[in-house]
Amino acid sequence: MQGHPAPQIKSQASGNPLERMSHILHDDMKKVNDLILNRMESDVPMIPRLAGYLIASGGKRIRPLMTLASTRLYDGQTPRPFALAAAVEFIHTATLLHDDVVDESAERRGHPSANVVYGNQASVLVGDFLFSRAFQLMVEDGSLDVLRILSDASAVIAEGEVLQLSLANDISLTLAQYEKIIACKTAALFAAATEIGPIIAGQDKASAAMLREYGYNLGMAFQIADDVLDYTADQDRLGKTVGDDFREGKLTAPVIYALQIADEGERAFWQRTMEDRIQREEDLPRALEILKKHKSFSKGMDLARSYAKKAQETLKGAPEGEMRDILSDIALFSVERGY
Amino acid sequence: MQGHPAPQIKSQASGNPLERMSHILHDDMKKVNDLILNRMESDVPMIPRLAGYLIASGGKRIRPLMTLASTRLYDGQTPRPFALAAAVEFIHTATLLHDDVVDESAERRGHPSANVVYGNQASVLVGDFLFSRAFQLMVEDGSLDVLRILSDASAVIAEGEVLQLSLANDISLTLAQYEKIIACKTAALFAAATEIGPIIAGQDKASAAMLREYGYNLGMAFQIADDVLDYTADQDRLGKTVGDDFREGKLTAPVIYALQIADEGERAFWQRTMEDRIQREEDLPRALEILKKHKSFSKGMDLARSYAKKAQETLKGAPEGEMRDILSDIALFSVERGY
Repeated sequence: MQGHPAPQIKSQASGNPLERMSHILHDDMKKVNDLILNRMESDVPMIPRLAGYLIASGGKRIRPLMTLASTRLYDGQTPRPFALAAAVEFIHTATLLHDDVVDESAERRGHPSANVVYGNQASVLVGDFLFSRAFQLMVEDGSLDVLRILSDASAVIAEGEVLQLSLANDISLTLAQYEKIIACKTAALFAAATEIGPIIAGQDKASAAMLREYGYNLGMAFQIADDVLDYTADQDRLGKTVGDDFREGKLTAPVIYALQIADEGERAFWQRTMEDRIQREEDLPRALEILKKHKSFSKGMDLARSYAKKAQETLKGAPEGEMRDILSDIALFSVERGY
Repeated sequence: MQGHPAPQIKSQASGNPLERMSHILHDDMKKVNDLILNRMESDVPMIPRLAGYLIASGGKRIRPLMTLASTRLYDGQTPRPFALAAAVEFIHTATLLHDDVVDESAERRGHPSANVVYGNQASVLVGDFLFSRAFQLMVEDGSLDVLRILSDASAVIAEGEVLQLSLANDISLTLAQYEKIIACKTAALFAAATEIGPIIAGQDKASAAMLREYGYNLGMAFQIADDVLDYTADQDRLGKTVGDDFREGKLTAPVIYALQIADEGERAFWQRTMEDRIQREEDLPRALEILKKHKSFSKGMDLARSYAKKAQETLKGAPEGEMRDILSDIALFSVERGY
């Protein structure tokens, strides 16, 4: 092969749409990351240490990316989204810290979770700190609309978490209740993260409402797919253990679909494993088998896909161009990602 | 005694200055309480249940009262302090919920604490909800100055809690470190609660700074006295068990003073009981004896009184009248209350 020109290295801008978006907004994201590191500082050393542990552990930063993208859809210049994207990530990080305490999680993103490394007490308090920091960043920006959107989202997230706790390990959980929980827990922050984009860019309420709708549906698609992937993912790529939700007895779309058409023996199986939480080693393989038999994964993915399509549909009113195209691709990718 | 007029029933407005203030601001406080009950509502029943359990458990509501009083010092009419006083109480309640989880407390105000009744998980999440609600109330009010003051206070409170956790059970804790912790944990919210009064009333920055200074010093006096009372209080009136801080190994002013002049045997005693947390039944009486011998309680009260006097001094620049007089009396009462 000597003498031939070296094959073109695949441009970084190719790859999946999230990577493409990260590439286009690379300089913006750099500024957001710098702000995140800078604003998690404190005189109390445990705060940046614990916050940094989680923040550096390789999250996808999809929410702040969505704030940047939904601003850049309308305004390529304003520096305002940097602080607000950091605020969005801080709120997300605070909820993860509290989530892991509440769920008594042992792992997050393939590493021991912060509550394991630093203890529940510090995780609760550093979560509170990051939450306060998020509001300080918003106050510095000075938009009451943004403050309203993100404080509303924060209250709704907490309500969703409490609702989930109230209904935990209950095999009579309906699909509607499940969708309500994830709408609060996940979609509300995605919706807020994208709604503030047009506001930052000085657009009218209709644009903000449109991007909110996009973010909400993206968040629903993302979470439902995540809940299917919890059973089906390639363990190494997902960076988390397969079957976590099963082991915690957390009812999600696949099991809810399977329960809708379960025979007596299967119902007893879900009752024992998810509600009574008596599990043996062979139970996860059996669960996977039942879920496959009842096409629960493809039903879950169909549900996720229907939200992704709604997200894409919503975007048709947004300004044409590369940004819109990638946001549209991201909606579908959130379902098809496979990890 | 027949024929004589019935003796005058002592006016409700007499009594200690906190009671006098509560009496004068009775209608205002009623509106704040209604708002608190109304805004802790949620579709998720566990939220008002848990929040109501703590909020109805007989807290003194001193922080929202301070917001009302520092507004009324300048403006007798504006309804704006109601929502903001409720926000202040929500922030305080959220920190209590998280505090009790972090400290693994069993009691609060003489009742089993919320974490014992409803679990740590719900306490963390309902705390998050109340914290978000506080910001929603502030956003509805619409003052960025108030939002800045209370988001700054919230971040400082969290920093203080983490600092306290980092230095817990360390008998080398200095008086300066102790004062830093309570400045963050307690005085910051008192300072914010009173600083927003003049702002709500449309006053200039100098008035806000003055009331902030008053609230800060009041908060310091209040907390130091509280820490002395933890050892000396009349158990029935305080509504909490005497010696909680000792049992938790929490270093506060009295023990810090005693450690400054401890002999070898006493140092070993504090080392064992507070740092190593090996305690026997006879240790609390012995601790009380050592603390009395070294005049640790009167030293603590002197420190508290010096802050109370600073608070009173600060108020001299405020508008003359009954409101100012009672605020001044409250500063000293926070030290002399005896429960």
